[in-house]
Amino acid sequence: MGILLLNADMGESFGAWQLGQDEAVLPFIDLANIACGFHASDPDTMRRTVRLALAHQVKIGAHPAYPDLVGFGRRSLACSPAEIENMVLYQLGALDGLCRAEGTQVSYVKPHGALYNDMMREPEKLAAVMQAVARYDASLPLMLMAKADNQTALDLAQSFGLQLWFEAFADRAYDNAGFLVSRQLPDAVLSSQEQIVEQARRLIMAEPLIAHDGSALRLTADTLCVHGDNPESIAAVSAIRHLLENLKLDGLV
Amino acid sequence: MGILLLNADMGESFGAWQLGQDEAVLPFIDLANIACGFHASDPDTMRRTVRLALAHQVKIGAHPAYPDLVGFGRRSLACSPAEIENMVLYQLGALDGLCRAEGTQVSYVKPHGALYNDMMREPEKLAAVMQAVARYDASLPLMLMAKADNQTALDLAQSFGLQLWFEAFADRAYDNAGFLVSRQLPDAVLSSQEQIVEQARRLIMAEPLIAHDGSALRLTADTLCVHGDNPESIAAVSAIRHLLENLKLDGLV
Amino acid sequence: MGILLLNADMGESFGAWQLGQDEAVLPFIDLANIACGFHASDPDTMRRTVRLALAHQVKIGAHPAYPDLVGFGRRSLACSPAEIENMVLYQLGALDGLCRAEGTQVSYVKPHGALYNDMMREPEKLAAVMQAVARYDASLPLMLMAKADNQTALDLAQSFGLQLWFEAFADRAYDNAGFLVSRQLPDAVLSSQEQIVEQARRLIMAEPLIAHDGSALRLTADTLCVHGDNPESIAAVSAIRHLLENLKLDGLV
Amino acid sequence: MGILLLNADMGESFGAWQLGQDEAVLPFIDLANIACGFHASDPDTMRRTVRLALAHQVKIGAHPAYPDLVGFGRRSLACSPAEIENMVLYQLGALDGLCRAEGTQVSYVKPHGALYNDMMREPEKLAAVMQAVARYDASLPLMLMAKADNQTALDLAQSFGLQLWFEAFADRAYDNAGFLVSRQLPDAVLSSQEQIVEQARRLIMAEPLIAHDGSALRLTADTLCVHGDNPESIAAVSAIRHLLENLKLDGLV
Repeated sequence: MGILLLNADMGESFGAWQLGQDEAVLPFIDLANIACGFHASDPDTMRRTVRLALAHQVKIGAHPAYPDLVGFGRRSLACSPAEIENMVLYQLGALDGLCRAEGTQVSYVKPHGALYNDMMREPEKLAAVMQAVARYDASLPLMLMAKADNQTALDLAQSFGLQLWFEAFADRAYDNAGFLVSRQLPDAVLSSQEQIVEQARRLIMAEPLIAHDGSALRLTADTLCVHGDNPESIAAVSAIRHLLENLKLDGLV
Repeated sequence: MGILLLNADMGESFGAWQLGQDEAVLPFIDLANIACGFHASDPDTMRRTVRLALAHQVKIGAHPAYPDLVGFGRRSLACSPAEIENMVLYQLGALDGLCRAEGTQVSYVKPHGALYNDMMREPEKLAAVMQAVARYDASLPLMLMAKADNQTALDLAQSFGLQLWFEAFADRAYDNAGFLVSRQLPDAVLSSQEQIVEQARRLIMAEPLIAHDGSALRLTADTLCVHGDNPESIAAVSAIRHLLENLKLDGLV
Repeated sequence: MGILLLNADMGESFGAWQLGQDEAVLPFIDLANIACGFHASDPDTMRRTVRLALAHQVKIGAHPAYPDLVGFGRRSLACSPAEIENMVLYQLGALDGLCRAEGTQVSYVKPHGALYNDMMREPEKLAAVMQAVARYDASLPLMLMAKADNQTALDLAQSFGLQLWFEAFADRAYDNAGFLVSRQLPDAVLSSQEQIVEQARRLIMAEPLIAHDGSALRLTADTLCVHGDNPESIAAVSAIRHLLENLKLDGLV
Repeated sequence: MGILLLNADMGESFGAWQLGQDEAVLPFIDLANIACGFHASDPDTMRRTVRLALAHQVKIGAHPAYPDLVGFGRRSLACSPAEIENMVLYQLGALDGLCRAEGTQVSYVKPHGALYNDMMREPEKLAAVMQAVARYDASLPLMLMAKADNQTALDLAQSFGLQLWFEAFADRAYDNAGFLVSRQLPDAVLSSQEQIVEQARRLIMAEPLIAHDGSALRLTADTLCVHGDNPESIAAVSAIRHLLENLKLDGLV
């Protein structure tokens, strides 16, 4: 069983500063990862983004981050597990506060940027994030990156009674362990829409990908991360959505 | 029917900086107004304060403020009603997130500092706060200042379906309309513990106060605001609690 | 003697968020008001903007503001004169630090947004800003808004030994006292480029403007505030620069 | 030639939050490392601290940090060299702005907390700090930690034309390479005043220290870092100052 859900980061404006084309992407996605004020967004932007997501019947996920507005949450910050647990709880609750005002609620959690990367590399940080989600509401899935071997994450999640959603990327090259090829290396980012849609098709159909070294890579993923930064990425999202709907109509997924 | 509940601001430390004697005050109060990160506190301090309040079986209130850490939320900030509504929702949700991790929840809302003062003076700001609380959870009481005439606030609250808790101050002089005498003026702050406890007694017994001009002032209040800043104020809180318990034992309240 | 210098706000990006078309406007202006990190900008953006200004041989002014990133410094914050003096000193020094790294320095000061508006209305806030500039370097001119009667500001500046630069606006309607017509009112903002350039021409030639009520308004100004927010405003700046250069060539200014 | 100067961190209050006993320590020290608003302090606190340092004829150093108020600058933040260079310039300039208002200026630079630790471990971060200081004013010494072998730092400083001040600690145990023993380990912090003053005496007299493993450790240092956090540390500073003055009177240093 392959991917059926598309997710994208949303609500990453801040005060007077606009970022992202939320309204252009929302028609094509299922899951909106909404910034919670630590790397981007503010209470007004969050409220507006929650309304937009509701209007498009898109599920709302909390997208918590390290407290680093000027660095957009992309710089690792040496936090303790307790600090991580509490900052996730704070942001998750804050977004849920705005959701409640619109009669809805947070449906899942996906950490952002450096916090996401750090939890993928350091089990005690992953455990801290899981602890936060489990204590807040153990029925909320945690989204994290699909690798060739997800067993460690699955075991940890089971100990917290949490459900995981694994995500994959259609526009990034993978190494044979299922890690993303560093952006420092050539061909790390797939540039043609044709390549991107083909990688999406394989992920949707649960077919193996072709890793950077040419080997077959089998990734089990629940959702595909897409981007709404510019017209090219929005065109790719639209094409992937179209493909997914056609595969559904054909009964192939 | 007079005052039966004592409330105090709590959790106003920030990162490495300690403020307030929370543990010394908690044994004597019923309601803890916990800072939500905009004028003071941070996720770790909030979690710790929630635990402390629980350990003392004290109800937890959200204490939202303007976003002004360096000014401790004491400086008025010219925000729109929509900005106020959303910042209250954000902070209320954030504190509730930390509460959920401890198996409890926010029980009421009391705005802090300049936001509190502004909402007492400007009905559209009071309406914005009420809107936030009503949309979050209309069963949460909003705490505000008792004046000689509370009708405007009561009418507004009714339109939002909200319950109000009026608070009074034992250590401050009142003018004959029930406003606090400005700290710029002499005798604005009651300094002797005897005076403070006597004013508390009158409020608890629903007896009229003596206003600054000597006239009788009838305030209807539900809760008394006390402070834990220093040994003197903690001694006063202890004396007021003692008085209240004795009056209860005597069946006088 | 009319206006010979054009000034524009610059460096108002923040971290990952871009704002303004600095490179498009710089060729047409003389004075760049650079944000100092309190309402916009950050150390990296400031460094980059200083370099850009230098490359275009444009003088650098400090553009200090209230500490309110999420509100872009547009919301009045009830600060004391001492707080204002110190926040101006901090921001002025910070920008000068980045300037020194590029072998240049701050040449003047123009407060931003709500701080600018507040100092125009409240003499003790204007005095606080002047105190800061005078203590930092009394040879730096302070830029403020030209009104029909500038005597109060001139007297105050003299007491601090400060030089003032008065600025006027080509794209805003004035009332007969030289205040800007509120944006709430119709025709507050001049919309056609023809009108804007004509108002600029009058200011440059030291001819009276036509106030909103039809009366003649004589404004004495040293510099014209222009904007680089969008293609229309940049076209207007370009046209005004062109006009100014032609008037210079013709020996008219 | 041993240590003749005592330095201490100062001005680490923030808004309403007080920290440190600046006035108690200032009579005993030569160099005040003043926080610049990124890990602690604010423009008002900086101004007040500059005044205090001046009143005690103590030299003022900039104490720049990562932007992390809630973490007090103690958590490493993955910044690029350019970000570090610019944040040091910003903070150095900001403190100098407050100094200028008091007719004085910054005399040296000592990074704080995690930035200090990171620059001691990563040469490219040390180079970024040096770049900032050299571009700001190459006559300002940079203070960093004395180790058994300071050659790398000295070579790098020479390439920037910078002077270094090495500092040592009287209250911390050293390993045989001149690194501080981790606080996780037993006996990392010297607890008796007798031990602290004896280690200070050795540093002042340029005698070898006894490292944690019992070996002799020769540290060449210019200044001793002392602390004013509590009565015990202030008593130790007073004793060290007394010792230093006596050694001077005896012509021993």
